Amino acid sequence: MMNYKRYQRVPVMNYPEREWPNKEIQKAPIWCSVDLRDGNQALVEPMVVEEKIEMFNMLVQMGFKEIEIGFPAASQIEFDFLRQLVERRLIPDDVTVQVLTQCRDHLLKRTFESIQGIPKAVVHIYNSTSTLQRDVVFHMDREEIKQIAIDGVDMVKNYMADYDGKVILEYSPESFTGTEMDFALDICNAVQRAWGPTPDNKMIINLPSTVEMTTPNVFADQIEWMSKHLENRESIVLSVHPHNDRGTGVAAAELAMLAGADRVEGTLFGNGERTGNVDILTIAYNMFSQGIDPELEIGDIKKIAEVYERCTKMHIDPRHPYAGKLVFTAFSGSHQDAINKGMHALMERKSEIWQVPYLPIDPSDIGREYEPVVRINSQSGKGGVAFVMDSFFGFKLPRGMHKEFADVIQKIAEKQGEVAPEQIMEEFRIEYLDRKEPYHFRKCKITDFESGDQFTTVAVVTYSNHGETKQFEGVGNGPIDAVKRGLEEELGISIKVLDYSEHALTSGSGAQAASYIHLMDQKTGKVTYGVGISSNITRASLRGIFSAVNRLFGDAE
Amino acid sequence: MMNYKRYQRVPVMNYPEREWPNKEIQKAPIWCSVDLRDGNQALVEPMVVEEKIEMFNMLVQMGFKEIEIGFPAASQIEFDFLRQLVERRLIPDDVTVQVLTQCRDHLLKRTFESIQGIPKAVVHIYNSTSTLQRDVVFHMDREEIKQIAIDGVDMVKNYMADYDGKVILEYSPESFTGTEMDFALDICNAVQRAWGPTPDNKMIINLPSTVEMTTPNVFADQIEWMSKHLENRESIVLSVHPHNDRGTGVAAAELAMLAGADRVEGTLFGNGERTGNVDILTIAYNMFSQGIDPELEIGDIKKIAEVYERCTKMHIDPRHPYAGKLVFTAFSGSHQDAINKGMHALMERKSEIWQVPYLPIDPSDIGREYEPVVRINSQSGKGGVAFVMDSFFGFKLPRGMHKEFADVIQKIAEKQGEVAPEQIMEEFRIEYLDRKEPYHFRKCKITDFESGDQFTTVAVVTYSNHGETKQFEGVGNGPIDAVKRGLEEELGISIKVLDYSEHALTSGSGAQAASYIHLMDQKTGKVTYGVGISSNITRASLRGIFSAVNRLFGDAE
Repeated sequence: MMNYKRYQRVPVMNYPEREWPNKEIQKAPIWCSVDLRDGNQALVEPMVVEEKIEMFNMLVQMGFKEIEIGFPAASQIEFDFLRQLVERRLIPDDVTVQVLTQCRDHLLKRTFESIQGIPKAVVHIYNSTSTLQRDVVFHMDREEIKQIAIDGVDMVKNYMADYDGKVILEYSPESFTGTEMDFALDICNAVQRAWGPTPDNKMIINLPSTVEMTTPNVFADQIEWMSKHLENRESIVLSVHPHNDRGTGVAAAELAMLAGADRVEGTLFGNGERTGNVDILTIAYNMFSQGIDPELEIGDIKKIAEVYERCTKMHIDPRHPYAGKLVFTAFSGSHQDAINKGMHALMERKSEIWQVPYLPIDPSDIGREYEPVVRINSQSGKGGVAFVMDSFFGFKLPRGMHKEFADVIQKIAEKQGEVAPEQIMEEFRIEYLDRKEPYHFRKCKITDFESGDQFTTVAVVTYSNHGETKQFEGVGNGPIDAVKRGLEEELGISIKVLDYSEHALTSGSGAQAASYIHLMDQKTGKVTYGVGISSNITRASLRGIFSAVNRLFGDAE
Repeated sequence: MMNYKRYQRVPVMNYPEREWPNKEIQKAPIWCSVDLRDGNQALVEPMVVEEKIEMFNMLVQMGFKEIEIGFPAASQIEFDFLRQLVERRLIPDDVTVQVLTQCRDHLLKRTFESIQGIPKAVVHIYNSTSTLQRDVVFHMDREEIKQIAIDGVDMVKNYMADYDGKVILEYSPESFTGTEMDFALDICNAVQRAWGPTPDNKMIINLPSTVEMTTPNVFADQIEWMSKHLENRESIVLSVHPHNDRGTGVAAAELAMLAGADRVEGTLFGNGERTGNVDILTIAYNMFSQGIDPELEIGDIKKIAEVYERCTKMHIDPRHPYAGKLVFTAFSGSHQDAINKGMHALMERKSEIWQVPYLPIDPSDIGREYEPVVRINSQSGKGGVAFVMDSFFGFKLPRGMHKEFADVIQKIAEKQGEVAPEQIMEEFRIEYLDRKEPYHFRKCKITDFESGDQFTTVAVVTYSNHGETKQFEGVGNGPIDAVKRGLEEELGISIKVLDYSEHALTSGSGAQAASYIHLMDQKTGKVTYGVGISSNITRASLRGIFSAVNRLFGDAE
């Protein structure tokens, strides 16, 4: 029995007036990357300055216009890094760096030293406001906690006097989700009154779920309530900073955007303290997949992932949305089959709009490939194997052949696990293309006679039987029929061609053709496919017949 | 510029009557594990029979009462596995196994063969209902798709006649989230009419987000709408089966529970196709953290993780909620400090209720340890270092000493990255306990004189100075004062004891005591702490004085 009675329900809002569930996301928020602060802080091996610079440059290239640099007053590395950015002139004009600090005088002093020479900076002050932290950490009442924030604003104003850039103030009531809403509102209103933002000169109020404590709809209620009750709202950029303790950080950010948040602070791949910050990439790709401009350049996920993994030494989970190794992969046979059909429909209809079952987006739109879409294991079905043969090797197996060949692959998969496309092709060769025992087709002379409206074909076939070269002649209404009849007489068998198809494997003259013959042994009723390839379409079908005959009669030898 | 115009918004419901946002989760749903089907199917190396049996046994021990075994008609391994469970009598009486199948006659026949001898089974039939799949995969209209499902019910009824166990029917309109709601309702109503469930003999209607296509509030709207419009609702167990394509599967399941879902199908750690199925463990621990009985035995996450990783060959992400290696870790100094204070408050108040900043649950409640709570890197602050010294080694550093020692560790962290607790202790030894140069305290004879209400202490101290053994005598109002005065005269220095504290390191007689002396060089104003340990409390403080003196005057030598 779990010890659940030690825990208490976090109070929710009674807020039936909420409007956010009627809304849809229409537009990207202002993105703020906190990879270099919150993200970096949570690494087993924090980034060194050169790694930070590489990460910063990538964030800039991705189109982030607000980037939190760190806590320069608390860490020499972060101070040095910021000075490097200034001295090496790495901050573009349209990018605003953000620096975090507690509301303490010596920290603010040092923070302003760190941003000297930067034309515009977000100075981000915070203090913890939750019921629990007021009680066990600060031993202060609401008024005392509020005074910390107001004093912080005064200190910023004081040090601003000697700063020649522009300061945008950001204030976070840290541990907001553990704070009574009336107090959160009170302290945010007090801060904005102390600062005096205007519609042309806004300040940022950032509401963090420092610890994610509730289902994301409750966070959305809190954001909407704050958004509607904040004084001077038109002068405020309302920001959220979700964490992911309950695994619902992305949802919390998305619902908060419905609820009125203008800005989202988060990190690439959700790096950050404990379970991480909200993953900006997932939110952005979610928007993208719904036809909304994410306002980030995230078309090359592999490059982003490569720089991220190298700088942070973290690894991206194989099931991470959009970036994970396995997420554009379908193991299920019915999924593979549907993807196959969906892609064909897309091509046939020349649709501009991407609609493929089980693939929310076209992997190539974010720099990933189709190849890994289909993985074949023992749980896969015939659709997947057929898809691999088509998309990797160009063999469009007739529908009736899917199961026959998939059964071959399934037996292998049940023994060894996943079967790679190359191995599937190799098995295809062994089973069909290279079946030359006991009867090996060597060459054929075809003569067509036209008599009235009837064609007669005479085929003279050279083949080897258990290595011994032989020849036979067959007459029929076409090459396949002629060879079939000749084979029947030569080998003393009775066969029926149930189906036949052929297609070019490559384009242009000299292209290879693949021919599929569905053949029945009339004595036993046993059926199989045979496959032949050749640059000559007639020879391809004759090879197909031999392939099928060897599959039907070869084992009995 | 991203190619976002290729994508379309998925239509949302206009459903302002929704009631779910006013609700709270009150109770665990019926859990159904699909680890052995949906989860297994998505593995690069699917489980072999023995691994499946180990996983099944663990799921049973965890308290799952409904476990999907697989797709026995489509996979020989899953068929064999199910027969093994039957023959080895591994299915407890209170556990119902569930088998998945498409609505096709030969598959249903084989499915019923697989469950022979089982007293009760959920037979789970499905067909794909989405607009897109009807169009590009099945080329069927709504009525034809509906007929597939109704025919499936008839086939189940047919094969049930020869089955001596009880069948609970489950129907899934696969790709529900891509289906028009009126059609989803129509097909579910048609299936339930064909089956004829009663309140005593319910059937399961399972609504999958086969592909997660919208923000989770839209899924909740869909579930509430279905729940309110389904005919004969009291005879139906309403189930959800969320996937995680947008990274919001847990949120979707939680909001769906608010919206009326009675049952959740998912997997451990969110294993499953692409981005995975919903992670049942995260939902369950989320409930647990809010004082709700999760109705699963998940008190030993490490064991669950071990079996899971071994059987699936997947790895749990270090930031996975509750289970990830880093999630009970705080790198931030202020977080470490607050955790430290929160834990102390908890102990002091002997609170039954867990409330600690940044730690939603007590790690020990799910079989994890406190030790990894605090990781020290260059971004950490003084609180964290003090916490490590206390919780790992029992040294309760005086508040004023936190920064002094944290600065030492920070310099190391800036060079090497993370600093392990053992190294922190080692540095503490080097900096304080083992400071024996230039002055090495050897022994001391203390004599106390009592004269009226006044004490006089005479201390005769033997020490070595740069290796040369010496002796001095000091007189004061106590041992510390006496030794201090003796040292001043002997070494020609002027020092002041600013603070002094001492505590037992271990309990019982013969316990070690640690003594902290805050000392000032009166000439320069320089201050430092010194620390001494001994089983004799007087000797501990004298060692503390020598430690401080060496720190103040040692470097000048």
